[in-house]
Amino acid sequence: MTPFDLSAATARRALAGVSDTGGLDDAAAIDRYARAIWSGVSEPGDGVVGTLVATLGATESLARAADPTLRIEGVTARELEQARRRWHPRLHATAVSDSLSIARVRGVRLLTPDDVHWPAQVDDLGRHAPLSLWVRGAVSVLPSPHPSVAIVGARASTGYGDHIAMELAAELSGGGIPVVSGAAYGIDGAAHRAALRVGGRTVALLAGGVERAYPTGHTGLIDDIARAGAVVSEVPCGSTPTKWRFLQRNRLIAALSDATIVVEAGWRSGSLNTAHHALDLGRGLGAVPGPVTSPASAGAHQLLRAGHAHCITSADDVRELLGLSPTATPPPTDGRLATDAAMRVRDALSTRSWRDASDIARRSGMARIEVEALLGMLHLGGEIERGTGGWRRATAAARG
Amino acid sequence: MTPFDLSAATARRALAGVSDTGGLDDAAAIDRYARAIWSGVSEPGDGVVGTLVATLGATESLARAADPTLRIEGVTARELEQARRRWHPRLHATAVSDSLSIARVRGVRLLTPDDVHWPAQVDDLGRHAPLSLWVRGAVSVLPSPHPSVAIVGARASTGYGDHIAMELAAELSGGGIPVVSGAAYGIDGAAHRAALRVGGRTVALLAGGVERAYPTGHTGLIDDIARAGAVVSEVPCGSTPTKWRFLQRNRLIAALSDATIVVEAGWRSGSLNTAHHALDLGRGLGAVPGPVTSPASAGAHQLLRAGHAHCITSADDVRELLGLSPTATPPPTDGRLATDAAMRVRDALSTRSWRDASDIARRSGMARIEVEALLGMLHLGGEIERGTGGWRRATAAARG
Repeated sequence: MTPFDLSAATARRALAGVSDTGGLDDAAAIDRYARAIWSGVSEPGDGVVGTLVATLGATESLARAADPTLRIEGVTARELEQARRRWHPRLHATAVSDSLSIARVRGVRLLTPDDVHWPAQVDDLGRHAPLSLWVRGAVSVLPSPHPSVAIVGARASTGYGDHIAMELAAELSGGGIPVVSGAAYGIDGAAHRAALRVGGRTVALLAGGVERAYPTGHTGLIDDIARAGAVVSEVPCGSTPTKWRFLQRNRLIAALSDATIVVEAGWRSGSLNTAHHALDLGRGLGAVPGPVTSPASAGAHQLLRAGHAHCITSADDVRELLGLSPTATPPPTDGRLATDAAMRVRDALSTRSWRDASDIARRSGMARIEVEALLGMLHLGGEIERGTGGWRRATAAARG
Repeated sequence: MTPFDLSAATARRALAGVSDTGGLDDAAAIDRYARAIWSGVSEPGDGVVGTLVATLGATESLARAADPTLRIEGVTARELEQARRRWHPRLHATAVSDSLSIARVRGVRLLTPDDVHWPAQVDDLGRHAPLSLWVRGAVSVLPSPHPSVAIVGARASTGYGDHIAMELAAELSGGGIPVVSGAAYGIDGAAHRAALRVGGRTVALLAGGVERAYPTGHTGLIDDIARAGAVVSEVPCGSTPTKWRFLQRNRLIAALSDATIVVEAGWRSGSLNTAHHALDLGRGLGAVPGPVTSPASAGAHQLLRAGHAHCITSADDVRELLGLSPTATPPPTDGRLATDAAMRVRDALSTRSWRDASDIARRSGMARIEVEALLGMLHLGGEIERGTGGWRRATAAARG
């Protein structure tokens, strides 16, 4: 039925150096191996695989993947038939061995849901959740006890967008909030770089295998992220990044984060796709406004206009979106009496002419008795001065 | 009881040249005169006057304004007593005669609710509605059959804000939507100017008397608005603009408009006050985003963040807020097959190597039969070419 040797010995040997199977019983070791195989056989987000594995387990699913008599709840016979045809071209014994070899050499670790380091947030994707993750760097970064934030946006960002991405990433990651992004040029790169610069934690999700840097111009950056944080992908080593995988990678960015912030995004930016995944998952979504004349902000404004995203102008706005208390200081106050009545009395005073209380009452349209009380308070506050002709506003000299 | 001569003859004589009383009976003429007097006796937004006039009428209210035995539903005895003290300093026979003289000389017209040109929208302010309006220019502009829009914002605007205010005002007023604003420096001035330039209708609400330009640097602009549209105030001629009157003037800007758009506003900008009046009145409210690094956009972002304002990036967004159909064209499409499956097949194709359907099926993680169907469609669309070795993406040369 299946071209794969799903014995425990084979599974443990295949996973050596990529996943520690020492503490696992045979079934668990085989399950882990089966998940690794599935990640090479099916494309990310394949809901039929998700349903199959949730029902039968990864091993049994794989063993019966080519079985035309298989029936399973939640998937029609037709869907199963179509899925079998999708998997068929990749169902051969060597499907995963190359990937595991590369992973072993490059220090890439395979994570599966039974691992303590598995980021359980991604299971919110349900039948579209990843079956396994391939990680370069510190796997312990992923299941964060703190909320994390995705900072994403256009590759064709502006200096303004880069600046804001860096400000947000530095302040948030510096404050212990991991910054998740996609390692792309533009906003993603600015966010990762700023997080690294302040010694914060940052996680990059790639659309292809984690052993290859994409874009290649970010090879150094991605290496740095792997050293200080983690570089993660759902597809095995050796896989090329494709448009489909970019879109599916975006769902993982959204799922791994408690909120997604779109800094700059054009009309058809991939980060809008990430934003919609965040919405679908019930995660927080924020967008940073920019000049309406800037095409690089059109997508962010679209999210704001539709009422989908919160308006983000500072790291404090992000903290609020994450349910954390902002570090904001209250707006400045100059300690002046700030009532409507005081305003009307001030309006009626001159800095030059002396005016008596009757005159001020008439000018302000207020009762004389109220005017007199307020004049006394403004006098105490040093705002006005008294002369033989009545009252006037204190000049700077008189106040100083 | 009252220092005013509220006879019909006096009323008609006093209003001559300011309000046409020819078609009015005596009571109506006196009512109009009483409203003119009230506009000099009370400050804008005095809710006690509003309740009094709604209950007793303007004439009877004025006749009994100083009467300590007066009782009225909806106003406590204490509130009445306080109100009497407010009005007292201004309750004298000459209160309004100077204002009417100036109005007569300067061609200012007095509008009251019985006038066909009264903009009934302001009555939504209830007991805080103006009792009368003083208008320089075309009174017929006010009760617009079309929706109108207020474009307001910071005096200390940036070039960006001025640009956007002009763009919005020109496009909206050029399309028949009157633009209402406050004739201040910055955003207000930019909006009025752009409306005038395209021959659109525009209305300026002033905090002081309409015969004096405030700010004085806008004397020419305000004269132009009076010629092409209308300059309006609630306070009579000769009144100085005070802070209190600016705030009350803002409620009229909001009330006269179906939607208020804040283009730029600092943290404590007066235009935020206008925005909150628009909200209170159930009018539309929009805010234009800008760079989050620009203090001139902080107030606009505050409105967006609080979810109070719609995000406005174009005149079409304003039209939508007004319930009008936008003139928008659909986003551009390049006519390519835009399904997930087509994307995955494209991903699997090379521009250099020829690949057969089996290879493409394996690379895309799709069934071979589906891949073949899509290859056919992409071929029809000219996107791919067929060779002896299979398929590849069409080069520009092959497509051209």
